[in-house]
Amino acid sequence: MKRTLAVLSLLLAAGCAQTSLREEPRGTGDLGIVIERADGRVAVVDTTARAVLGRIDGLGDLSHASAVFSRDGRYAYVFGRDGGLTKVDILLRRIDRRVMQAGNSIGGSISQDGRIVVAQNYEPGGIKVFDAATLELLSEVPTQSKVVGLADLSGNRFAYALFDKGEIWVTDLSDPRRPRTQKFPAGRQPYDGLVTPDGRHYMAGLFGEDGIALLDTWKPEQGARKILENYGKGQEKLPVFKMPHLRGWAVAGNQAYLPAIGRHEVLVVDKASWKESGRIKVKGQPVFVMARPDGRQIWVNFAFPDNGWVQVIDTLKGEVVQTLQPGKAILHMEFTPRGEHVWLSARDDHTVSIYDTRSFERVATLPAQSPSGIFFTSRAARMGF
Amino acid sequence: MKRTLAVLSLLLAAGCAQTSLREEPRGTGDLGIVIERADGRVAVVDTTARAVLGRIDGLGDLSHASAVFSRDGRYAYVFGRDGGLTKVDILLRRIDRRVMQAGNSIGGSISQDGRIVVAQNYEPGGIKVFDAATLELLSEVPTQSKVVGLADLSGNRFAYALFDKGEIWVTDLSDPRRPRTQKFPAGRQPYDGLVTPDGRHYMAGLFGEDGIALLDTWKPEQGARKILENYGKGQEKLPVFKMPHLRGWAVAGNQAYLPAIGRHEVLVVDKASWKESGRIKVKGQPVFVMARPDGRQIWVNFAFPDNGWVQVIDTLKGEVVQTLQPGKAILHMEFTPRGEHVWLSARDDHTVSIYDTRSFERVATLPAQSPSGIFFTSRAARMGF
Repeated sequence: MKRTLAVLSLLLAAGCAQTSLREEPRGTGDLGIVIERADGRVAVVDTTARAVLGRIDGLGDLSHASAVFSRDGRYAYVFGRDGGLTKVDILLRRIDRRVMQAGNSIGGSISQDGRIVVAQNYEPGGIKVFDAATLELLSEVPTQSKVVGLADLSGNRFAYALFDKGEIWVTDLSDPRRPRTQKFPAGRQPYDGLVTPDGRHYMAGLFGEDGIALLDTWKPEQGARKILENYGKGQEKLPVFKMPHLRGWAVAGNQAYLPAIGRHEVLVVDKASWKESGRIKVKGQPVFVMARPDGRQIWVNFAFPDNGWVQVIDTLKGEVVQTLQPGKAILHMEFTPRGEHVWLSARDDHTVSIYDTRSFERVATLPAQSPSGIFFTSRAARMGF
Repeated sequence: MKRTLAVLSLLLAAGCAQTSLREEPRGTGDLGIVIERADGRVAVVDTTARAVLGRIDGLGDLSHASAVFSRDGRYAYVFGRDGGLTKVDILLRRIDRRVMQAGNSIGGSISQDGRIVVAQNYEPGGIKVFDAATLELLSEVPTQSKVVGLADLSGNRFAYALFDKGEIWVTDLSDPRRPRTQKFPAGRQPYDGLVTPDGRHYMAGLFGEDGIALLDTWKPEQGARKILENYGKGQEKLPVFKMPHLRGWAVAGNQAYLPAIGRHEVLVVDKASWKESGRIKVKGQPVFVMARPDGRQIWVNFAFPDNGWVQVIDTLKGEVVQTLQPGKAILHMEFTPRGEHVWLSARDDHTVSIYDTRSFERVATLPAQSPSGIFFTSRAARMGF
């Protein structure tokens, strides 16, 4: 009898083992991932418990990785620098699928309906379209150019910029095997782009000339126009230590907040006229300039050698109200969905710090190996990523 | 041996039975609930599969019910007309907890940090504060008035209006056992309220006089001011068949779209000046006026006898571009998180219809018993509910 019980226990354990991670059902609304860039690994995190739940290995070169989420919040699609596209199951904490899709990739997006994932590539250029469930390649759009600034629009459309051709392209993937593309002259060497939070305006920063190309995607027939032609100008030019990430541009109320290139300034732009309405002095060359979800605060991190600092601008006062030192080499910031906290990755301290955005107190510090991008599942419900 | 195997199978079945509904883990980002108002029941729905996954009974009088979600997306808090507050586990599809908290309730909110749930009550008035995990009563704020238009603000604050006192109150629940309340004179008989999507402005519609009370919660020291003093005026007054739901007010770009009271019109208001900038003729007295998440479309449903119609305003053209007949007695509408579809409840047809917002085609019809409110988990990540 004793032996039978032992066998029973073993079998019971085996029978249920498959569901070990599944036993306690849980929602996915408060989950996210942190890229551990040096180890090809992501940490799965919980923003309610403020904890690391586990890690998933084997994602390749994550030195410039980004991620988007399935519309159910269960899967992250991680775009690696080496062209790897990995679909990660954050509930079971394992790789669901993985394909090598290009030689050199810098990111991707997911369609409004969640059915297709699109990767933007440096080498060999172009975009590739994948089935979000299977990662089957459905189509591609060759560009004969590096592609930058890919962002999703409504109607399963995607906007992106061609560095070598100086164009903005908008590809309609309503029929994902038959891409239809509109092309707009934009200006010399667009290096990154973004879509405003409402999904209407696509902007591409220009490296080869001063200014930003702006396309009203509700009125594409008007073409792209140039705004902020003094964007990179000013007095004497400063050396640029790191190109700012435009994806971090913040829109708060009727103002947009942009990193000035090479200058210790954040530019304020009036969204009605698209003209500069002010500049705010900050501690270094801004990299990410991100709005708290309610738009009351703008958080700014900086290029080397000021990358140990983070500053907070109060949009009502129009000035810096807080200066923090969260750790060494602050690479990225992510707000919790409703903005009560912000998570900051400190690559050279191997920590992720969590700050209360009201009191500016540090509420937790989590261990992470060379953390870079932080991405929460709430992105699944938003446009323009 | 045969008998041993039979026993083993039984035990295995028993050992794993607890996880029957849990076996297949799933994300919660594409889930929601539909109130089946006549039966005290909610249907759990999946916006990816466009299907009803199951139903949960025993929620009491749901004739004017609303719901908010836990920050992980697993639980819905359903506020019933009879004062019942039910915490529903949408993954396991069962009631987690339920309390009778008042004699007559009309809704509630959840705090920015997700830790407290607040109910607003007609009888005996006031708000009550509950622990979101346990539904333990933590505190209450008596008002000696019906409370309407409760909405959450940043910093675990809540704004609401007092029908009988003509005031807007803002209660800070950072310490949920020690509410701190600021009071603002607002005008006669506020009957509903809302917060703008960025969480900054609180507006209360006035029943006892023309106009709307507006409080800038970033500058509460300025107090509430009156806007749109001709809101209910015009030519001859029409009988009002159903008070519009202000919670449905739509903000798109720099314009807000409001239901005119008693008139077959949608008012357009400039958000910079808070003055009326136009009126759009529609088919009946508007009830809900809701913006697609990107602000390009405004969907409008109507009071009896026009409640079988739905109209769509294109915000770029400023006119109605589509008129639909989704079913009898359209009570509510909810957009999928990124707006590719809208779900509409047809109470007297006992169906929920799903429309593609680009083609205006009906893509699915689901059975539901006297459906009213439709609420998706993506609300968990947004302010002002």
